[in-house]
Amino acid sequence: MTQRIAAVLGAGSWGTALAMVLADNGHEVRLWSHNPEQVAAINGERLNEKYLPGVILPASITAYRDLEDAVRDADAVILVVPAKATREVASKLSSYLPADAVIAHATKGIEPKTSKRVSEMIEEELKAVDHRPVVVLSGPSHAEEVAKRQPTTLSASSVAMEEAKKIQELFMNENFRVYTITDMVGVELGGSLKNIIALGAGISDGLGYGDNAKAALITRGLAEIARLGTKLGANPLTFIGLSGMGDLIVTCTSVHSRNWRTGNMLGKGMSLEEALAQMGMAVEGVRTTEAVAELADKAGVDMPITKGINQILFHGAKAKDIVDQLMTRLPKHEMDDLQDVLNAR
Amino acid sequence: MTQRIAAVLGAGSWGTALAMVLADNGHEVRLWSHNPEQVAAINGERLNEKYLPGVILPASITAYRDLEDAVRDADAVILVVPAKATREVASKLSSYLPADAVIAHATKGIEPKTSKRVSEMIEEELKAVDHRPVVVLSGPSHAEEVAKRQPTTLSASSVAMEEAKKIQELFMNENFRVYTITDMVGVELGGSLKNIIALGAGISDGLGYGDNAKAALITRGLAEIARLGTKLGANPLTFIGLSGMGDLIVTCTSVHSRNWRTGNMLGKGMSLEEALAQMGMAVEGVRTTEAVAELADKAGVDMPITKGINQILFHGAKAKDIVDQLMTRLPKHEMDDLQDVLNAR
Repeated sequence: MTQRIAAVLGAGSWGTALAMVLADNGHEVRLWSHNPEQVAAINGERLNEKYLPGVILPASITAYRDLEDAVRDADAVILVVPAKATREVASKLSSYLPADAVIAHATKGIEPKTSKRVSEMIEEELKAVDHRPVVVLSGPSHAEEVAKRQPTTLSASSVAMEEAKKIQELFMNENFRVYTITDMVGVELGGSLKNIIALGAGISDGLGYGDNAKAALITRGLAEIARLGTKLGANPLTFIGLSGMGDLIVTCTSVHSRNWRTGNMLGKGMSLEEALAQMGMAVEGVRTTEAVAELADKAGVDMPITKGINQILFHGAKAKDIVDQLMTRLPKHEMDDLQDVLNAR
Repeated sequence: MTQRIAAVLGAGSWGTALAMVLADNGHEVRLWSHNPEQVAAINGERLNEKYLPGVILPASITAYRDLEDAVRDADAVILVVPAKATREVASKLSSYLPADAVIAHATKGIEPKTSKRVSEMIEEELKAVDHRPVVVLSGPSHAEEVAKRQPTTLSASSVAMEEAKKIQELFMNENFRVYTITDMVGVELGGSLKNIIALGAGISDGLGYGDNAKAALITRGLAEIARLGTKLGANPLTFIGLSGMGDLIVTCTSVHSRNWRTGNMLGKGMSLEEALAQMGMAVEGVRTTEAVAELADKAGVDMPITKGINQILFHGAKAKDIVDQLMTRLPKHEMDDLQDVLNAR
């Protein structure tokens, strides 16, 4: 494999795990962080203790505090900062971006008010200097397992397939398999909206409900994601693929998931402020819920689960009342509702 | 609610849990078992200790050893015996079946050699005496949680919607919600074939692989179930509903699942004989895998996961080799393959 220079912007759990995959593939990896202590710990002790506890980072990863240095001559730049920091980082990046670097992101989220996907935010901030289409990398992937080199599969998507293929080639190895898919809208929406359902799954578990209730919530959750997605131009099939159902399952049924853990605390009666303080890391589903509840109204799409969780998060509704409402709210004939997914195209 | 006489044939975990729902709804419930000791324990101590340990059964459930007595004047007969006992029980039932009883089943499985669904087996055995269409009741539902009255949702399906509605009315309550759906082929195939994928999920976990690998397996598993199902006349949307994806998730991610537990033992190196001896109860996925591997060939449908698990179960293949093969076998472009699902219609 040809050695490349790859800059990973954002040294959270996922950015660091992706940097490790690139290092395994023999590339020169630059991991950018805004936090000087984190940069020092990565370069000194080879540790990123807060985000990937106990994992020793390969020597070919160098942490950078300076964005210009991090992206100089890079063949690929991958943004993995929280969604709410994406515009700021992309805007700074626009001054330093090498002319022919492929640009990707692996961030989940929808911007409140504008309803923009992450690739749209990045492209808006880079537009003045650059017109290359962005690639999204998404799929069922806990960072902790990727760091342990356990088998993982993801999808890479872009409106320009040649860009997605560059990302596929850069990351692909025996344990980390990347597939290309053309439906970028579906991939970004599936990846982002599953965090809402993961909050709901955590709430249901926190209330003491069982696997039967959670499976119903996940299933109905995917139906409403697909309903909105197809209305916004996605292919409904994307939602039963790796970046849709696959990612949804892993996030809703695993103790690793931040969104599930946050929901679980809410279900047990904690306030949103208390739960977020206990997490101490970005919980993308919270902001996404707000953004998507607005978007559902704008698009005229029925999204009872998202709306219910929005009520719990921001409007003081009781978790038990909302979950009980959702469980009794299905139409009498299941297909009437599922058929909407295809009709919405 | 009008009180009915309901006969539940089969006193395993699921039959007993369904009998409890009917008892909660005020019906006279007769629970038939071929095992005289089990009948005595249910009527005497109100316990079915092997199948629902620690659960006290309501007084309105009476266990029967005699099939004719159990179904006399019944308004509804629900078969919940293992798939391999279905023909025998249905055949005996044909002599005693009341003229206007609704007939349902809640059994998962496909018959080896004939490739018949459970409703087809029942209808064949009853044909001489009865032409009423059978109803299937299926969805994400661990018996243990239903026995605890935790929220659960299911689908009832039949080629005759009025029969499905009778079953919906009989079972529906605050904790146990039943939705009707017309696609009986899809409901029966989804419910049966998910047991194959649950074996695979257990094998993957038993090998020590993580949630990322399991999510990929579940996602690709649903794609191959849908590919076969649509070829056999099912509506592809059924597979993303409660009886498809919902049931698949609950079976693949829960410690209650017998198929997952059996797969888990195989992944840890136990032989099929050892694992089944340790389970000591019907593990429907084993027989279903054999039946569906044959059916895939007959129907000319690509089912790599089913075929791989069949190799592990019956042809001495190593679990690790098969799972590693499956993980590296996806097409380079994810959609090419998913599109097959719709093209197969």
